[in-house]
Amino acid sequence: MSTQTMRGAVIHGAGDVRIEDREVPRIQEPTDAVVRVVATCICGSDLWRYRGIAPVERPTPIGHEYVGVIEELGEEVTGLRVGQFVVGGFLTSDGTCPVCRVGQHANCQHGGGYDGCQAQHLRLPQAAGTLVPTPAEPDPEMIPDLLALSDVMGTGWHAAVSAGVTEGCTAVVVGDGAVGLCGVLAARQLGARRVIAMSRHADRQEVARAFGATDIIAERGEEGVAKVRELTDGIGADAVLECVGTEDSVVQALESARPGGMVGWVGVPHVTEIPQQHMFWRNVGLRGGPAPVRAYLEHLMDLVWRGKIHPGRVFDRELPLEQAPEGYAAMDERRAIKVLLRT
Amino acid sequence: MSTQTMRGAVIHGAGDVRIEDREVPRIQEPTDAVVRVVATCICGSDLWRYRGIAPVERPTPIGHEYVGVIEELGEEVTGLRVGQFVVGGFLTSDGTCPVCRVGQHANCQHGGGYDGCQAQHLRLPQAAGTLVPTPAEPDPEMIPDLLALSDVMGTGWHAAVSAGVTEGCTAVVVGDGAVGLCGVLAARQLGARRVIAMSRHADRQEVARAFGATDIIAERGEEGVAKVRELTDGIGADAVLECVGTEDSVVQALESARPGGMVGWVGVPHVTEIPQQHMFWRNVGLRGGPAPVRAYLEHLMDLVWRGKIHPGRVFDRELPLEQAPEGYAAMDERRAIKVLLRT
Repeated sequence: MSTQTMRGAVIHGAGDVRIEDREVPRIQEPTDAVVRVVATCICGSDLWRYRGIAPVERPTPIGHEYVGVIEELGEEVTGLRVGQFVVGGFLTSDGTCPVCRVGQHANCQHGGGYDGCQAQHLRLPQAAGTLVPTPAEPDPEMIPDLLALSDVMGTGWHAAVSAGVTEGCTAVVVGDGAVGLCGVLAARQLGARRVIAMSRHADRQEVARAFGATDIIAERGEEGVAKVRELTDGIGADAVLECVGTEDSVVQALESARPGGMVGWVGVPHVTEIPQQHMFWRNVGLRGGPAPVRAYLEHLMDLVWRGKIHPGRVFDRELPLEQAPEGYAAMDERRAIKVLLRT
Repeated sequence: MSTQTMRGAVIHGAGDVRIEDREVPRIQEPTDAVVRVVATCICGSDLWRYRGIAPVERPTPIGHEYVGVIEELGEEVTGLRVGQFVVGGFLTSDGTCPVCRVGQHANCQHGGGYDGCQAQHLRLPQAAGTLVPTPAEPDPEMIPDLLALSDVMGTGWHAAVSAGVTEGCTAVVVGDGAVGLCGVLAARQLGARRVIAMSRHADRQEVARAFGATDIIAERGEEGVAKVRELTDGIGADAVLECVGTEDSVVQALESARPGGMVGWVGVPHVTEIPQQHMFWRNVGLRGGPAPVRAYLEHLMDLVWRGKIHPGRVFDRELPLEQAPEGYAAMDERRAIKVLLRT
């Protein structure tokens, strides 16, 4: 690190994200890494604070998605080298606890979240269990695809896995944000023969089709459910990916599943209770939560590396980090699906 | 049918079940069968009305589990012959609708429930899609095992399937009624290496062990969950079978599952909402409902026929039909796990 300060995004309150000078992070624990961020991005969940839905009690560094190059490693970190290009998920994980050993890294006993990735440098706890290096230095055009693995593609994949997508099944995706679109891609990769994307926006419908959606339904709620059933022999889909998190969307997802079907939910729930009338008597299940991105990262990186998937298509706007405030405004006003920031 | 009247159980109100003369049922639809009941039994769910929890608005024939011999068939029934010994689930199904074709017979588009099996004869709608004949006339000592397939064994199996029990996994069973005990047997048959039965009653613990439970936990609620975690590397079980249906037991089941684990619920829910705090952030799923017994019946009948399973062990009391009132009292007072009635 040649400087003691760096540039980084800090949220001060609703509608108020600023790029400021921040202290360059240093190794604090022997299991840490410091990464020079090459690209980062803005998440739909960052907008909660930007929109005033979640409170901002003090100025807070923001951002939880990144790709970059390892600059420094704590002395206990194994399996990584300074200079490697790495991707990490939006949660840290030790990779060794009993929860990680069953592949559920999002619930790691020693893991957690972090904030402040929309910056030039980043300190990562539990580096050995969190970061995955690319096979070699990636071409610049591959950066968006790799960056998408840090959250949205891993989360869409978790939705599809949780929904039990299998070869030949019919899947429905509720939600046309970046996660929902990645859910379409995941469902196809996992073998769904038919993927019905629910979307009202032409730009998102286009990405959904590029990701393999076979049908698009613009209607929502009961009308949307009726359309799903029209396309599914009158009974609903085998697997439904819920990528929103509101009560309306959870109910729409449950009602879109056939008897014996499963909803995979990854939209952070804005509901505290699930109305069971949509579940038990219809024999419809519900499974999911925060995505164990780390568990999927090697496989997804391999797919990206071999050019099999291009989840970076969800980025429809690219800005320098200094223009992060415009990126937030563009996503807030739905002028962009997802904004990539170059440091 | 040599007589026009038969004997059958009728519930008149809380605590008031009588054996009365009832009219012998006849074929009404060309898809019906009439069955001479050989054995029937009393279900935990029958006790709701007996205990006054569910209302009894008028005297109603009762019972939904049976094995017997086909006496008469409607002219459109295929695949069955008069004189065959048959088992059917507690719900009828046509076997041909799109829902049945995906193996979800409990939600058949033309199926339904029925009442009045605690009687000498029974009319069954949708006979071709509901009844399964045994390979030959069964030995009398096999009758309890076959009768258990009509509901409790199929329901316990559904709990295990819904919970995603796989080879080598660890399963927990919440509930030590006949369904929970059959859930223990199902989990073992489906390959669970370890099955933890939660039971406070010595007689039920004994059946649980006979069915393959490897561990018994007598504690409930938070203490019970803590004991489960002690036995499961601190994280909870891969699969949890919820066979009660109260809010306490559903929460106990969800908290007994590890991150990424699944609860299979078959206990008719006495809750209208599921508190999602026990699900999303822990990545714990919930799936199940009324059991599609018909979907499992051939396989389970084969296991019984070959002597591989003896689910009839849940019957710890056998009475003639005329003594059904004593059977209800014995189950209500927990003097019996489950009572078999011979017609």
